[in-house]
Amino acid sequence: MSAPRHSLAELAARFDLQLRGDSTRAITGVGTLEAASPEQLSFLANPHYRTQLAHTHAGAVILRAADADACRGDCLIAADPYVAFAKIAALFERAPARSPGVHPTAVVAADAVVDNSASVGPHTVVESGAVIEAGARIGAQCYIGHGCRVGAQSNLVVRVTLVRDVTLGKRVLVHPGAVIGADGFGLAFDKDHWIKVPQLGGVRIGDDCEIGANTTVDRGALGDTVLEEDVRLDNQIQIAHNVVIGAHTAMAGCAAVAGSAKIGRYCLIGGGAGIVGHIAIADKVTITARSLVTHSIGAPGEYSSGTPIQDNRAWRRNAARFKHLDELARRVQALEKKDTQS
Amino acid sequence: MSAPRHSLAELAARFDLQLRGDSTRAITGVGTLEAASPEQLSFLANPHYRTQLAHTHAGAVILRAADADACRGDCLIAADPYVAFAKIAALFERAPARSPGVHPTAVVAADAVVDNSASVGPHTVVESGAVIEAGARIGAQCYIGHGCRVGAQSNLVVRVTLVRDVTLGKRVLVHPGAVIGADGFGLAFDKDHWIKVPQLGGVRIGDDCEIGANTTVDRGALGDTVLEEDVRLDNQIQIAHNVVIGAHTAMAGCAAVAGSAKIGRYCLIGGGAGIVGHIAIADKVTITARSLVTHSIGAPGEYSSGTPIQDNRAWRRNAARFKHLDELARRVQALEKKDTQS
Amino acid sequence: MSAPRHSLAELAARFDLQLRGDSTRAITGVGTLEAASPEQLSFLANPHYRTQLAHTHAGAVILRAADADACRGDCLIAADPYVAFAKIAALFERAPARSPGVHPTAVVAADAVVDNSASVGPHTVVESGAVIEAGARIGAQCYIGHGCRVGAQSNLVVRVTLVRDVTLGKRVLVHPGAVIGADGFGLAFDKDHWIKVPQLGGVRIGDDCEIGANTTVDRGALGDTVLEEDVRLDNQIQIAHNVVIGAHTAMAGCAAVAGSAKIGRYCLIGGGAGIVGHIAIADKVTITARSLVTHSIGAPGEYSSGTPIQDNRAWRRNAARFKHLDELARRVQALEKKDTQS
Repeated sequence: MSAPRHSLAELAARFDLQLRGDSTRAITGVGTLEAASPEQLSFLANPHYRTQLAHTHAGAVILRAADADACRGDCLIAADPYVAFAKIAALFERAPARSPGVHPTAVVAADAVVDNSASVGPHTVVESGAVIEAGARIGAQCYIGHGCRVGAQSNLVVRVTLVRDVTLGKRVLVHPGAVIGADGFGLAFDKDHWIKVPQLGGVRIGDDCEIGANTTVDRGALGDTVLEEDVRLDNQIQIAHNVVIGAHTAMAGCAAVAGSAKIGRYCLIGGGAGIVGHIAIADKVTITARSLVTHSIGAPGEYSSGTPIQDNRAWRRNAARFKHLDELARRVQALEKKDTQS
Repeated sequence: MSAPRHSLAELAARFDLQLRGDSTRAITGVGTLEAASPEQLSFLANPHYRTQLAHTHAGAVILRAADADACRGDCLIAADPYVAFAKIAALFERAPARSPGVHPTAVVAADAVVDNSASVGPHTVVESGAVIEAGARIGAQCYIGHGCRVGAQSNLVVRVTLVRDVTLGKRVLVHPGAVIGADGFGLAFDKDHWIKVPQLGGVRIGDDCEIGANTTVDRGALGDTVLEEDVRLDNQIQIAHNVVIGAHTAMAGCAAVAGSAKIGRYCLIGGGAGIVGHIAIADKVTITARSLVTHSIGAPGEYSSGTPIQDNRAWRRNAARFKHLDELARRVQALEKKDTQS
Repeated sequence: MSAPRHSLAELAARFDLQLRGDSTRAITGVGTLEAASPEQLSFLANPHYRTQLAHTHAGAVILRAADADACRGDCLIAADPYVAFAKIAALFERAPARSPGVHPTAVVAADAVVDNSASVGPHTVVESGAVIEAGARIGAQCYIGHGCRVGAQSNLVVRVTLVRDVTLGKRVLVHPGAVIGADGFGLAFDKDHWIKVPQLGGVRIGDDCEIGANTTVDRGALGDTVLEEDVRLDNQIQIAHNVVIGAHTAMAGCAAVAGSAKIGRYCLIGGGAGIVGHIAIADKVTITARSLVTHSIGAPGEYSSGTPIQDNRAWRRNAARFKHLDELARRVQALEKKDTQS
């Protein structure tokens, strides 16, 4: 297989970009402004990196019209250079070939349905009643449990576990170590010990979702846990039972959502942010990194909690004062009262 | 296998509940007040959902005596409706059948002991010296390391890893991706680099514990890491070496406990809460979500840290002031002093 | 195989320690001051445990010269007792024997290179183009993806996943459930939906690194994600794409580093700490547990954020005041102004 190779003219035409420079220049890959070679294409999206434009050895650069004059070499002008870069870079991505079929070491139940155009990797287990649709790629060491369905063209990279009653839409991408459909954490306290509340629901994941490495999405207690289409979850995220996440919402690494919370569409949840159970978050809400959401949020906007990082000695003094903040506020009130009276 | 079917009279008798309504009504499943059908049983435990009672299509509802009059249809009266529901719902849980025996693709060491009534799933590995007791179910792709023991009736759902010297009690339930018995994080700094401190202890997990998906419990450095009976851990929890967790304590997702901390019995540790190393927490302590416990807690009660979620602009202003809180407190003191002197 | 057995004289000579007591005493293992038997060696490093010296039954104790007089029995005097203990304890560590060779259930690509002295465990998959160097131990259920290289004497305990283009140095130790080389979280927002930004880089891990259970290290977007030599990562840590971590830095459990952050050498990152993307942290910086670093740190030292744990009622009052801290500060300013004017 020879490496992909595209002329600037071809890229400009295909992605509807304006070309400035040598239309015959051949591009064989992509790179950062700092590291790209003359056969590679780079991009400038974040103004922070504008100073690198003068020194880049990239064969061509995707950028905004406003930056084009600062570019000494060839360029492709885009309204959104990062989007254009994402699309072009995909041409140079080389996934390992995976031919259709079931690897001889895979264990597939007699009544599971695996489409002829799907692939099932080594040491993967497909249980009874599972369905794997056309073009789906199930990598090595995956587990597709009872009653699970993997939608067309979905890609379970390697060692992905769908425990039970999980439905993935089309073109869903799941990274290694993810566990979807494990029991939710349901307990009832019976006098002096816990008893388990059976978890009987499933998980429904919409088209074009992406689920990060070692992320967990629990099955519902009675109804289902739901991710609508185009939800994007980074690594090590925890989604508890009966959570609903609206379409196009993205969550960064280590975020966590407790049971039955409902998150709107087009939300951005920062890394390590937490959302408690049984609350609702409106569409287009941004939660900054490590914030904890303890009540429903009804309006779009950006929300935060926490305190700023400081050198430890200063922080200790301030943190000690936080323990008496209410008292401090009362003392200020008392001073104000006296002041008014005098 | 036909679906389970139980009359209300039968359920009332079996679980010692008071029946109001049609004792012959057949129940074939469970559901939420909102979604249950006339053949399903629902429950009302959280007063928040009381308004749904008027509109439910559930065949019958488990509820407190005080709510019975508000229920138009049949009901089962319980002192604790959630506990009663948990017990009844278990009748309708249908675990995939697993017949005893070792799957032909499993790799079991010659000197491992697997009880005849236990099952070992596909692609599971059982190492030398491991023991799997009566009725235990080891799902697919598990790893039972050297010197590990899985107690009777325990259930390792799928892809559970017991690394080394791990003992599970009876009826322990472990979800996929959990890693129990990996090395603790022990390092000694030798002038200009780290050297590893050998981790030689094991892990002991009591009867009736539950361990969530992708949760990690490290082996002890010299002694053992211990979970007493009926400890319940949600997903993605990290338990470091030599931690001891008292019986009946429950921890929500993403909580973390650092090395050698000792947590009491009947504690409730909120989601994402952290507990630093070498401290002790009394029985019946509740830690709210995302709080960080930095010193021992000697008395039962509820404890918290953190700041409330706010819109980002307000939060920024307040957070900036936090950096100078000690100075602010000193200024208030100065005002008070002047005030007293004047 | 008989248990290892070393005389105190032998240990003193080998590790350059001063011996006080019976040089012929045989040591067959190690233990804590509290639990060690007369055939075991213990140590005193943390002054907190000095009181246990009087009651220990340990055969001998490694300690500082200053503590030697308080020791009734035999002792080995060391400048750093914890380092000496770590080295001696390693003599008593007994890793399960693993003979070289590829287990018959492993699936190894025809063009993968596995050194004759390396071992590959059951149900492991080694993909095309992978290289496993001399003496490396790949445990059961691992996945070594396309273009990955495992350095000499490295040890992938069990169920470790190297997704793609991952290079491990020599003597790297990786614990179960770790996922190295999964796609970074790269998304571009295209009008009303996300498109994936291809992740084309790799991961480079230096010699003597340790990676904890269920930790994730993503591949770079264009360049590589890098851990320099002797970096130590505990369990459930998340390292995003293009992060660079300097040599000898150690991070405790559940810490997380966002994309393109650069962390210096000899840093200590506390449990659950977070570091946002695109910032730089100097050498020898300590971040305390659960702190969030939101801007670059240019100088060595200790840094913190957060608020102290309190009983919930007091905390609620203080947290409520935090929401109006800026206003409180303004009120204090107003009082000061009036005070000056009066």
